Amino acid sequence: MRLAIVGATGAVGRELLNVLEDRNFPVDELTLYASSRSAGKTVSFRGETLTVKETPSAAIDADIVLASAGGSISKKLARTWSSKGALVIDNSSAWRYDPDVPLVIPEINPQDAKNHNGIIANPNCTTAILAVALWPLHRAFKASAVIVSTYQATSGAGAEGMNELLHETENYLNGKKPGGSVFQYPIPFNVIPHIDSFQDNGYTREEMKVVWETRKIFGAAEMKISCTAVRIPTLRAHSEAATVIFEKPASAAAARDVLASSPGVKVVDDPANNLYPMPLSASGKWDVEVGRIRKNIAFENALDFFVSGDQLLKGAALNTVQIAELFI
Amino acid sequence: MRLAIVGATGAVGRELLNVLEDRNFPVDELTLYASSRSAGKTVSFRGETLTVKETPSAAIDADIVLASAGGSISKKLARTWSSKGALVIDNSSAWRYDPDVPLVIPEINPQDAKNHNGIIANPNCTTAILAVALWPLHRAFKASAVIVSTYQATSGAGAEGMNELLHETENYLNGKKPGGSVFQYPIPFNVIPHIDSFQDNGYTREEMKVVWETRKIFGAAEMKISCTAVRIPTLRAHSEAATVIFEKPASAAAARDVLASSPGVKVVDDPANNLYPMPLSASGKWDVEVGRIRKNIAFENALDFFVSGDQLLKGAALNTVQIAELFI
Repeated sequence: MRLAIVGATGAVGRELLNVLEDRNFPVDELTLYASSRSAGKTVSFRGETLTVKETPSAAIDADIVLASAGGSISKKLARTWSSKGALVIDNSSAWRYDPDVPLVIPEINPQDAKNHNGIIANPNCTTAILAVALWPLHRAFKASAVIVSTYQATSGAGAEGMNELLHETENYLNGKKPGGSVFQYPIPFNVIPHIDSFQDNGYTREEMKVVWETRKIFGAAEMKISCTAVRIPTLRAHSEAATVIFEKPASAAAARDVLASSPGVKVVDDPANNLYPMPLSASGKWDVEVGRIRKNIAFENALDFFVSGDQLLKGAALNTVQIAELFI
Repeated sequence: MRLAIVGATGAVGRELLNVLEDRNFPVDELTLYASSRSAGKTVSFRGETLTVKETPSAAIDADIVLASAGGSISKKLARTWSSKGALVIDNSSAWRYDPDVPLVIPEINPQDAKNHNGIIANPNCTTAILAVALWPLHRAFKASAVIVSTYQATSGAGAEGMNELLHETENYLNGKKPGGSVFQYPIPFNVIPHIDSFQDNGYTREEMKVVWETRKIFGAAEMKISCTAVRIPTLRAHSEAATVIFEKPASAAAARDVLASSPGVKVVDDPANNLYPMPLSASGKWDVEVGRIRKNIAFENALDFFVSGDQLLKGAALNTVQIAELFI
């Protein structure tokens, strides 16, 4: 397979290279692109040293382009990149809501990938981490309403986000006033209930992405979903607390059974032994951890669960490569 | 008023002294007690130096005892401390669920304080911070179901919790493996969905405290409440994301109006100007910040909101002193 990566030097780009190596993706040719600022840098892949080129404004000569260059660049150029037959798998939000563009999580809707017109969209990180756990439960018990609160890592703002957390935390501990420019407010030892822009309905775009994208991926246009998206001072794994009301009878034990045999999910749910999902254990892992599964006590026939998943892996690079694997 | 503080050298004890000073509480006499380990230490109050004595196992000769010595000590000794007429206002969970002990938030149920038999319980921090915002909305629109996810600071585990966060974060930044003994797992850059012990129903005791205590304080034994309680790497303000289903019609604007005139609450809700509740702004403040108020899109007639409140103040010392003020 002839591959290209756009945005190869970013946090997701670096993980794309790791995931391609770790999954033994059949790469015959690999071309790396990044912004003019990063062009000329060298990157190692399978023992070879590759030089990063500047992101082109023309067709890319490859079978598959893994794009992680940000929404505005993707919106402008993805059609051009794919104009000579390359399939662009895009990690930005630019194409996700286009009815002609499939939005794919391979564990959930691989069949949708076949109907592409040159672009497949990779979902938002928070959506992907929730959806991979929610889907098997939805299939088994039919979810009618979902309430989710997120605990989102700084990696969601790229390498700059993680660097700012580390750097500003160091400043704080050294008695300096924490500052920073990536987030709206200093992030060390803080919580910021604001990710992406505010919408007219009072939700942020990040929160609505979870609504719009889960519905599209599940093929469940009417599913009731609400989200509160919150940035917290962690590095690279998102956690989410979910309450789900089901139409069919659902017990915690039955949910555990369903999830135990579901791909992309690792049930970590043994409270007696202090086992539950955490960024500490979910970071760097392909599977999303699911635990704290329990019968909700406020609603009839509802369950609560907690997930932690690596934002750069299942939330980005891993899912992108898994989509590409559908075309091997 | 002749006051005593039990647990005077802990994180809450120190805040009790600050709050008594800041609110000009009429203190005629002040006796400080702590464990044998801390007895003999000196503490400054209104310019005077007081020597801490060892917590007695006998009646305390005072009008009011502000106790923050932990549940097991309080369970064993509070009745004895109050046996010669002192009123014990207890900050632990030892007495909160005793039907003969009022559980009081002065903005909500001050009338209950009058029916004490020597002990008044101060609520759990997470409960107090949520309840002060939820109560005015419940009065106005009658809440029928509440779903809450918490973002809880390390101060909930006392001064040791905060010290461990700072110390272990420093270790992490210096390339050492973070450890620690206060929390179940290392807390730097991590999230731990486990506070207090697990119950048979899969909820933690911390989560059930929010259920039990909110119902008792509100006099709403049937109110449906569910909570997911999560420890995050912040210092001293808890945040909480709430979804509330109401019986009466409730708009975001009407909720903002109700909260704007409610005691103990500061509406911080101007997303266009990046104003919403945060630990950064709520720490050290008496009022609980409430914002992100919006019509919930998953349920009919429901609202979402986000609160941040100082765990050591409204969550502990401030509320305790406010209860004492009812007896001035």
